[in-house]
Amino acid sequence: MIRRTILSLSKASDRLASLNITLPPPGLPKANYNMSCITTSNTLYISGHLPILPSGSLITGRLGSTVTLTEGQSASRLACLHLLSTIHDRIGTLDNVVKVNKIFGIVSSDDDFYEQHLVLNGASDLIMDVFGKEKGYHARSAIGTSVLPLNVCVEIEAIIEVKPGCYKEVEI
Amino acid sequence: MIRRTILSLSKASDRLASLNITLPPPGLPKANYNMSCITTSNTLYISGHLPILPSGSLITGRLGSTVTLTEGQSASRLACLHLLSTIHDRIGTLDNVVKVNKIFGIVSSDDDFYEQHLVLNGASDLIMDVFGKEKGYHARSAIGTSVLPLNVCVEIEAIIEVKPGCYKEVEI
Amino acid sequence: MIRRTILSLSKASDRLASLNITLPPPGLPKANYNMSCITTSNTLYISGHLPILPSGSLITGRLGSTVTLTEGQSASRLACLHLLSTIHDRIGTLDNVVKVNKIFGIVSSDDDFYEQHLVLNGASDLIMDVFGKEKGYHARSAIGTSVLPLNVCVEIEAIIEVKPGCYKEVEI
Repeated sequence: MIRRTILSLSKASDRLASLNITLPPPGLPKANYNMSCITTSNTLYISGHLPILPSGSLITGRLGSTVTLTEGQSASRLACLHLLSTIHDRIGTLDNVVKVNKIFGIVSSDDDFYEQHLVLNGASDLIMDVFGKEKGYHARSAIGTSVLPLNVCVEIEAIIEVKPGCYKEVEI
Repeated sequence: MIRRTILSLSKASDRLASLNITLPPPGLPKANYNMSCITTSNTLYISGHLPILPSGSLITGRLGSTVTLTEGQSASRLACLHLLSTIHDRIGTLDNVVKVNKIFGIVSSDDDFYEQHLVLNGASDLIMDVFGKEKGYHARSAIGTSVLPLNVCVEIEAIIEVKPGCYKEVEI
Repeated sequence: MIRRTILSLSKASDRLASLNITLPPPGLPKANYNMSCITTSNTLYISGHLPILPSGSLITGRLGSTVTLTEGQSASRLACLHLLSTIHDRIGTLDNVVKVNKIFGIVSSDDDFYEQHLVLNGASDLIMDVFGKEKGYHARSAIGTSVLPLNVCVEIEAIIEVKPGCYKEVEI
């Protein structure tokens, strides 16, 4: 009942509040690049984001032997939450998102772990909850790999479309 | 001779027919995402597609020990055929494709298998056959990896441009 | 001092000259695809590029056991240099680049090598040096993998925006 009420809300900012989601502070790149970049056509490319715990440490390891499916799903949701924080930081409010176009998720995996697509649902479910069907229903690819930067268990990047003029360039 | 005739055809739908290619039925996502997503600028992002046999089972394993190069090429062509089916389903006819911009292919590989680019030709050749040089000549990246969702041997995603107004949103 | 002077130059072509960077000759695809592809909205997709030495041979191996971090950074810079050569070849001059939007880099890695983001700085530093902050500050994702085509240690692809009308289609 409560969930149905939340999902009937049309604004992403209202949904965030109703879902009791607090965005983490926007992060800094781990190296010489930007967390996002916008085109003239209002396409926003968002860099690969990692699962950072409130303590600042990362969720590391591989799906299979050292990270369970449930833990991996939480990690992909967490990486996506940081990605949303980057978006929020650059466009002022998530209400300026026109559409989430594409999610690409890479899962650090044992050779015999085959459920990368289920791991990614942690991110996709968050996207759908926050943006709703119309703006949040995205294309996606999920792949496994043998190792990721800083030994994180999952990395998420995204391509979204935003309202014209809302993007604020970061100072460097 | 026959092939030359086919390649002189300008419409993708005519080429499909001449090549005796029947598109498989459009697939459903394996998890909580959409098979494709369109932007305001008519860019169509197509989700990672897998090599699904007519029986419904998947072509699994790794290039090298368990999947040969020839089998891998067939699998990448098959994954691409399903990708074309998704495009067809959403834009009515492949004649509405303006340009195939980008193919990204990920090949599940043994550590000493180095011919991912040749595996991907299965997909690229199909694209070129169906869309011709002008619309089909695409940018591409091919990589190897240790494991893919559901243990498939190859996954293909694409970015294409379509004619304005032809995209039909899937019902969810 | 000299570096500061270079970085104050606003044109990419002037920066290239001041940095004493000579672009390698444009390369050919390793298989049936194009090195780049442009959209109606002037987005240029650039295919995955490899680290090719002046001799024509490739920098192969894995980060960790067979390739050091420093060697990997040189390799990612080299792959990016070839990517710039492709751009230059297709749009006449790098001054026609409006913005480098996105870099995606894949690093062939031992299972316990976790610094893929540092490897990618070889490419990102080159981008920033050549295009400057305003045009060169890009979104980026770095991932590790178990193996890449032709056993290269790193592969780099990019998405950039170019000035309308400057793109010259390659003859095939």
